[in-house]
Amino acid sequence: MQSAITFYTNPYSRGGIVHWMLEELGVPYRVEYLEYGTSMKAPDYLAINPMGKVPAIRHGDVVVTEAAAICAYLADAFPEAGLAPPPAERGDYYRWLFFASGPLEAAIGLKSCNLEMTSDQEMQLGCGRLETVVDVLADAVRGRRYIAADRFSAADVYVGSHIGWGMQFGTIDRRPEFEKYWQVLEQRPAHRNSMEQIEAAMAKYPLPDAGT
Amino acid sequence: MQSAITFYTNPYSRGGIVHWMLEELGVPYRVEYLEYGTSMKAPDYLAINPMGKVPAIRHGDVVVTEAAAICAYLADAFPEAGLAPPPAERGDYYRWLFFASGPLEAAIGLKSCNLEMTSDQEMQLGCGRLETVVDVLADAVRGRRYIAADRFSAADVYVGSHIGWGMQFGTIDRRPEFEKYWQVLEQRPAHRNSMEQIEAAMAKYPLPDAGT
Repeated sequence: MQSAITFYTNPYSRGGIVHWMLEELGVPYRVEYLEYGTSMKAPDYLAINPMGKVPAIRHGDVVVTEAAAICAYLADAFPEAGLAPPPAERGDYYRWLFFASGPLEAAIGLKSCNLEMTSDQEMQLGCGRLETVVDVLADAVRGRRYIAADRFSAADVYVGSHIGWGMQFGTIDRRPEFEKYWQVLEQRPAHRNSMEQIEAAMAKYPLPDAGT
Repeated sequence: MQSAITFYTNPYSRGGIVHWMLEELGVPYRVEYLEYGTSMKAPDYLAINPMGKVPAIRHGDVVVTEAAAICAYLADAFPEAGLAPPPAERGDYYRWLFFASGPLEAAIGLKSCNLEMTSDQEMQLGCGRLETVVDVLADAVRGRRYIAADRFSAADVYVGSHIGWGMQFGTIDRRPEFEKYWQVLEQRPAHRNSMEQIEAAMAKYPLPDAGT
């Protein structure tokens, strides 16, 4: 018997990445919506993720946090979905998963916060300027349908989400190579299914300051 | 015939993590030392890593960048070394690899740069305060010899390096759980071998402003 999956998220969070990944797997899962500042910081949830952040999943006895880690875990735990390359062929797969969760995430975060850095600080931070990071990402997807091993994988779910949302929220430029790469991904039925659920949850759980 | 590994590094960089990993594998590799600002930004190396950063590896036709990605890749490419859990049992393995390369790396970087954040900025960045990140890491290693699957893995190389160096450079508190975890790891012959090579390279390639 397959273990049950519980998915902890908030419709406004990076949990959307995992929501899409779960739809790609095609296995049953239960969604638990948590709210910023309240249920996300309550003892029950801190026992799952002591960072008090979503997303997280529980799969049987296994708890995984960090969106990229959850994508990599699920791809390996459900090999029949074919969402990870064979272990010996994972150069690009890991390279871009860690690039997007490390330097890309950090550089976008710093830019969104308007934190200006000196060049010494930049070297210390090691993530590089957002412009450089985005140039490197554009090279990685240019002329490629998928980012790793010439077929769709969890790395596309993760990297593609960053690119799609980045363009939507203006943190990543709308470049032709990003548009082309994202266009294929966003049409996937699993992505559309996850977006429908996320939009329904947004209507049900509005952000406190977007509310009444 | 096994493909050759070329390892691009600088003795003062996060390349030390990969150096240790390569020693754990016990396979031959060739080290190419690059200097900050010169050979690290030269076209030959930008063709390997367009970020102009070390570490990177080339293994046959495969290029991998980002220290955590390289550790994960090598563990899977050389399964006989037993440095990754079986694919279905990688919850903790991925969780802590991505935790250390994401929130931990970002929070340490921000702290080292003395970048102060408002709580709105903190929420936007998503990495959390260094104090919280370090508390969570302490919980993860407390009472455990290894961080994933009850045996030594590439996740220990990566997370352990952050803890060991963090304590040495004062970016991570010297807590008893960190000392205990690190004590076992730093005694490993592969770690000692990598440190000997790194120290020899430091003598040969002093940092420009530590030099004459």
